[in-house]
Amino acid sequence: MSDQTKLIPNNSLITPTPEEGRALAVKIARLTIKTTQPSAKVREELRPIYANDAAMLIAIGHTVAVEFATIAKANNYWI
Amino acid sequence: MSDQTKLIPNNSLITPTPEEGRALAVKIARLTIKTTQPSAKVREELRPIYANDAAMLIAIGHTVAVEFATIAKANNYWI
Amino acid sequence: MSDQTKLIPNNSLITPTPEEGRALAVKIARLTIKTTQPSAKVREELRPIYANDAAMLIAIGHTVAVEFATIAKANNYWI
Amino acid sequence: MSDQTKLIPNNSLITPTPEEGRALAVKIARLTIKTTQPSAKVREELRPIYANDAAMLIAIGHTVAVEFATIAKANNYWI
Amino acid sequence: MSDQTKLIPNNSLITPTPEEGRALAVKIARLTIKTTQPSAKVREELRPIYANDAAMLIAIGHTVAVEFATIAKANNYWI
Amino acid sequence: MSDQTKLIPNNSLITPTPEEGRALAVKIARLTIKTTQPSAKVREELRPIYANDAAMLIAIGHTVAVEFATIAKANNYWI
Repeated sequence: MSDQTKLIPNNSLITPTPEEGRALAVKIARLTIKTTQPSAKVREELRPIYANDAAMLIAIGHTVAVEFATIAKANNYWI
Repeated sequence: MSDQTKLIPNNSLITPTPEEGRALAVKIARLTIKTTQPSAKVREELRPIYANDAAMLIAIGHTVAVEFATIAKANNYWI
Repeated sequence: MSDQTKLIPNNSLITPTPEEGRALAVKIARLTIKTTQPSAKVREELRPIYANDAAMLIAIGHTVAVEFATIAKANNYWI
Repeated sequence: MSDQTKLIPNNSLITPTPEEGRALAVKIARLTIKTTQPSAKVREELRPIYANDAAMLIAIGHTVAVEFATIAKANNYWI
Repeated sequence: MSDQTKLIPNNSLITPTPEEGRALAVKIARLTIKTTQPSAKVREELRPIYANDAAMLIAIGHTVAVEFATIAKANNYWI
Repeated sequence: MSDQTKLIPNNSLITPTPEEGRALAVKIARLTIKTTQPSAKVREELRPIYANDAAMLIAIGHTVAVEFATIAKANNYWI
């Protein structure tokens, strides 16, 4: 893989569209968790826990919203 | 459906009015949860849990507030 | 009622004063919860739960603070 | 009392100094809770609960931080 | 002590460096808690509770991050 | 070690790339926890607790997102 970054894909916050910016926000949020819990096995075990827990799903949504605020601003809201 | 986006409806943060901007904030928040929990069946099962839990309703409101901050800024507060 | 909006009263973030801006923040926060839990009966049942729970009152205050940040900025802080 | 506001003392976010701005943030946070739980008796009963609970004290601090961000910006950081 | 402030040390958000700005963020966060729980004895009793609890340590870090955002902006990021 | 700072590595928020800015956000978040809980032994004991808890991993991600927002702005989003 030519992209050597571990935390920010392509090492950039700039995306062509809001949709791709939002996907980047989701991705960045996941990569932070990957850095804190590097074991893919453990992360897989945790997935059904948070994916079936309403409070955790809301908390994930909140985190993505914060990431997206930064990305949207970096892209001047794609105006 | 012509709109192929999964995370940002119409692939834009721009709305004609604050009301529509707020509706977009609610929608975007829901789409993040849909991405994390793709099963419609599970999401339906979770609905009565969070819709009857005061703490979760507040947490949803908090998340929508964060999404709306971004959308409101993108629209220069509809001034 | 002439105001047909469900999420943003008067479809505007602009208010004459900080006090009215704050009241709008409280109102908007409540309308998000109303959208998520449309049953007035359920919301009434939840009221004594959060109104007597210190942690939930703090969480409501936090949410209103986030809403107010957006409204205050929209009004250029009423300077 | 000449100040008729219930949510924003003096109906203004402007303060002479950071210290007074911070005090305003604390005050505004409390007034939101007062609006949600109007009973002084209940609020008094809740006080020892949150004042002796580390997690709730942190949550209060978080909320005040968000209020202060708005007030500090309104005052251009008192520069 | 010549500094009569209780919430903002030196009554200023301006610091010479990011390190000092961060220390100020930590300090301000603590002073909010001191205002809410004035008893030094109680605060001392709470210290081992939050200092040994992962979730509370994270919540403290979150609060400091919010305080720092304000201070960093006040200092124009020390650029 | 020539870097005498304890809270902000290199005493600067400026980084060459988004990837390094994100790494700095992670680092700063950890240093706040180190300041609150100085014992390396206790922090090591807490690691498996939060690293195996979905809710705590999400909360860490949220905190890093807030730190990153500040760093990204300080770097003008590396545009």
